[in-house]
Amino acid sequence: MKKLRIKDIANDLNISKTAVSFILNGVAQEKRISEELVERVERYIREVGFRPSPIARGLRTGKSNIIGLMVESISDPFFATIARLIENMAYKQGYRIIYCSTDNDTEKTKELINVLRERNVDGYIISPPPGVEKEINELIRAGLPVVMFDRYLPKVKTDYVVIDNEFSAENATRYLIHQGYRNIAFITFSSSLTQMKGRMKGYRTALKEEGLKPYVMEIDFTPEEKVMVQGVREFLAANPKLDAVLFGAIQAGSCGLKAITQLKLKVPQDLAVISFDDHDIFELFSTPVTAIAQPIDKIAHKVISILLERLEEGDNAAAPKEIVLKTKLKVRKSSVPAK
Amino acid sequence: MKKLRIKDIANDLNISKTAVSFILNGVAQEKRISEELVERVERYIREVGFRPSPIARGLRTGKSNIIGLMVESISDPFFATIARLIENMAYKQGYRIIYCSTDNDTEKTKELINVLRERNVDGYIISPPPGVEKEINELIRAGLPVVMFDRYLPKVKTDYVVIDNEFSAENATRYLIHQGYRNIAFITFSSSLTQMKGRMKGYRTALKEEGLKPYVMEIDFTPEEKVMVQGVREFLAANPKLDAVLFGAIQAGSCGLKAITQLKLKVPQDLAVISFDDHDIFELFSTPVTAIAQPIDKIAHKVISILLERLEEGDNAAAPKEIVLKTKLKVRKSSVPAK
Repeated sequence: MKKLRIKDIANDLNISKTAVSFILNGVAQEKRISEELVERVERYIREVGFRPSPIARGLRTGKSNIIGLMVESISDPFFATIARLIENMAYKQGYRIIYCSTDNDTEKTKELINVLRERNVDGYIISPPPGVEKEINELIRAGLPVVMFDRYLPKVKTDYVVIDNEFSAENATRYLIHQGYRNIAFITFSSSLTQMKGRMKGYRTALKEEGLKPYVMEIDFTPEEKVMVQGVREFLAANPKLDAVLFGAIQAGSCGLKAITQLKLKVPQDLAVISFDDHDIFELFSTPVTAIAQPIDKIAHKVISILLERLEEGDNAAAPKEIVLKTKLKVRKSSVPAK
Repeated sequence: MKKLRIKDIANDLNISKTAVSFILNGVAQEKRISEELVERVERYIREVGFRPSPIARGLRTGKSNIIGLMVESISDPFFATIARLIENMAYKQGYRIIYCSTDNDTEKTKELINVLRERNVDGYIISPPPGVEKEINELIRAGLPVVMFDRYLPKVKTDYVVIDNEFSAENATRYLIHQGYRNIAFITFSSSLTQMKGRMKGYRTALKEEGLKPYVMEIDFTPEEKVMVQGVREFLAANPKLDAVLFGAIQAGSCGLKAITQLKLKVPQDLAVISFDDHDIFELFSTPVTAIAQPIDKIAHKVISILLERLEEGDNAAAPKEIVLKTKLKVRKSSVPAK
């Protein structure tokens, strides 16, 4: 689409820039611009496909065309990739994204919600920590659409896009059982959030049906990766019976692979491995690692299109969209049949 | 540090919340609060270590306590990690960060500079694309401090924090030569930016001194990773004489390792490898990959402390700080001596 400037429209129609500007800003009547001139400009715009700059559009609509994106941590490749895709898709629609990391910290998130609100964002995309129900409900009441992703808050009625966590974990655990593994650990981050609870439940369900014993390790997240690697190493060393492990998140997986390397364990001979979230480290590890791949593109696409729909149509009243997407088990050599 | 609220101060000193608020907001005199009361409150705050909320501080100082951080791409692990560290460090000092990705796109960056300016940020941290000299100079003239990192714009006089790119590339190339490799490729992204020009120069210098032939491949960046991997694969296949390769950036390295895996080349027997930027994929690759590690923590720390100094002291007039940091060659098995 051709990008026209106010100057171009004024020149082509041989009218003043001020008049064009008044019309674009929706104050034609107030400024006593004739109906006929308004129509001429509008027809011209339709014909040549004028795409106004977000700022010009903001002037007309009172909107900023800025979306606030709050992720748990931008250094987590899952969130970084989603953020990037959302940004690209939004940009093409004339929206700009500003983002920040919540650290899954309730107080910090509350504050950042306000920081963004004071910066006049039109809407929010949030992977929320627990405890911000009140703040999000306030945004919604104020007419600011909020789309949650990765997890949702059961007490907040708003759109969300998540994956089928319970099924994904159950399916991966079943896969390991089917391949002949019996002592399967689940190593994950401790969390009360929906996505992590779902993964834990799926893992336990699969084991229970086969009468197998669960081995669960919950890592306390710390920015000191060495500490987490050390923790996983101690857990693996203390449970020599283990023949397989399911990692509950990408960062649990990367800590785990480091621990496995340090312990000189062979994958899959000593320990079969599957991890949530696909990533280069799993593809390129000495034994390529089977991964539960989230449909990243689809998540980003759903999230931004739901939000833009709310923004463009202003239909905050419509029923919340609760989207649950499927994952894909990308089978690699780390989970071949046990001997 | 204990976090006190206005209410707590008022209760403890048995004075009104309004008075405390006036004092914190710097309007005590105007509101006819006695000098004695101001002193009592100030002493109390010093003693118990009151950390005012950024918003309260903003009210007093007219500042937003928000910093705009513009990186090339937040999905690049180098930028994501730096962003995260800067955010953490800033948060502890009462500053909030909002970030966005420039895509190295000049027009997009110009627009985002304005988006952030309209959102009232106090200062900017930017890894700039080419062509935004005018816009950055305008910010500086308007009293908004700007710190550049990763690369700098020679025509902009402002603080920057970079690494010694030329030396790092020269040193890594020399290391490969010293290990017995003779046909060493440099695979990198095409770029006119200072950091990439420096890396190219260092590579060429090392080869020239030994009378060796350069093999350069410049990848055109595209979000379609497969296309880039394919390009590297074709380059490697077309140059069977190569016995080593230096990758000029983390994403060039990850594409390269995928190409190497697809071609079933053995590292280092068929091809020795060194890459710029350290990352899990290099540590965990089937043959651990020697990496030129940037001092990420130090870069983040320098960037944020220079900016906060400018903000706190308002000394925009002081001479720009031009910081060049050293990298570290993390030697792993991918570059053992050639046979």
